[in-house]
Amino acid sequence: MTEQKATNIHWHHGAVERQHRQQLLGQKGVTLWFTGLSGSGKSTVAVALEQALFDKKHLSYRLDGDNIRMGINKNLGFSAEDRAENIRRIGEIAKLYCDAGVITLSSFVSPYREDRDIVRKLHEDAGIPFVEIFMKTSLEEAEKRDPKGLYKKARAGEIKNFTGIDDPYEEPLNPEIVLDTEQLTLEQEVELLTKYLEDQGNLSA
Amino acid sequence: MTEQKATNIHWHHGAVERQHRQQLLGQKGVTLWFTGLSGSGKSTVAVALEQALFDKKHLSYRLDGDNIRMGINKNLGFSAEDRAENIRRIGEIAKLYCDAGVITLSSFVSPYREDRDIVRKLHEDAGIPFVEIFMKTSLEEAEKRDPKGLYKKARAGEIKNFTGIDDPYEEPLNPEIVLDTEQLTLEQEVELLTKYLEDQGNLSA
Repeated sequence: MTEQKATNIHWHHGAVERQHRQQLLGQKGVTLWFTGLSGSGKSTVAVALEQALFDKKHLSYRLDGDNIRMGINKNLGFSAEDRAENIRRIGEIAKLYCDAGVITLSSFVSPYREDRDIVRKLHEDAGIPFVEIFMKTSLEEAEKRDPKGLYKKARAGEIKNFTGIDDPYEEPLNPEIVLDTEQLTLEQEVELLTKYLEDQGNLSA
Repeated sequence: MTEQKATNIHWHHGAVERQHRQQLLGQKGVTLWFTGLSGSGKSTVAVALEQALFDKKHLSYRLDGDNIRMGINKNLGFSAEDRAENIRRIGEIAKLYCDAGVITLSSFVSPYREDRDIVRKLHEDAGIPFVEIFMKTSLEEAEKRDPKGLYKKARAGEIKNFTGIDDPYEEPLNPEIVLDTEQLTLEQEVELLTKYLEDQGNLSA
C-alpha cells in the first residue's frame, strides 16, 4: 500500500454530500472497471455504454488508458512500479468521480490482480460499488484483431513488456461480470451491462 | 513541463462529448481555483458556494488540499518538487471534472505562480474556463484566525516550510476575482461568485 506522507491534514465534510449529488442526478456513483487484453474491446464497449446511458439521461464519464496517460499520468511509463502507480491513481480518480455521483467507466488493460484489488478496496472502503468486468478474449483472437497494430510491434520487439506477449495478464478470479467477447455482440454487451446497473439500483437515486 | 513518457497512445473521441454532458446538466464545466494563505477561508467559501449551487440544482464538486492528499496524492509530501506535482495532478483532475460537465471548486494554498499558471494553461488548451480567485488576507489576519492551529506550530518550528512563515506565498498577478476576506462576509463572497458564474454563462448549457 502507498504510504501516507503528508501530516497535519483533516478531512473536510461539506454540507453537500454524495447522497445529495446522487439525488440531483437520479443515479448512484459506481465504477465499471473493464479489464482485459489490448484488443479485447474495453474502450469500444465503454464508448457504446456511455452513449446508451446518455440516451437514458444518465451522466457517465470514461477514464481511458490512453487519454489518462496524456494528462495526469503523463509522468508514468510502463515499468512495473509505474504501471501500479498508474492504476492506483486511476482508481483514486474513479472513486472521486463516483463520490460526485458519476457513473465511471474505466477501460485499462490493468493486467495485475493486486493492482485491481487495491482499486476495489479503495472503493469498498468508501462505500462505493466497484464492478470488475472481465473482457474475456483469447490472445489468439486479440492478436488477430490488433486494432492499433501493437501486437505486431510487440512480436517484432519494437514494444517491450507488452501484456500477453512478454508480460503476463492475470485473469480476474471473481469478477462481477464476464463478457465473452468472442460470443457476444456489442449490442448484447451493452444490454447486459445496462440491465446489471438497473438491477443493482444504480440508475436511480 | 512534465515529460510525456508513454508512447503508443491515442486519444479516444467518444460519441458522447463534453457539450452533450453539459446539455444534460444544464451548465458548463468550469474550474474555480481558490488560492490564498492557510486560514484565508478557501474551503469555507467553497463549501458555501457548493451549497448555493446545489440549491439551484447545479452539480459541483470540491477538490480540497486536505482530502486530495489522503487519496490520489498520498504519496506526495511538501518538498518543492512534491508541491508542484501535487498541484499539477489536481489541475489535471479539475480539468477532467470540467470535461465531465462538473463545476469544480479547488481550494489549495497553491502558493507558486508557476504551478497555478501550469494549471491555467492545461485548462485553456482544452478550451475550459479557469477562474483564479485570490483570497486576499493579510498574514497577520490569517495567523490570528489560525483555525487549525498550524501557524502556531509553524512559529514553534514544529512544521517546516509553512507558507507565509518560512515559505513564500506568491500573490496572483491577474486573478479573475479578488475576494478581500477582511472586508466581505461569506454571504457576499458566495453572491459575488454565483453572479460571476451566471454572467459568464456557466449556469446554462
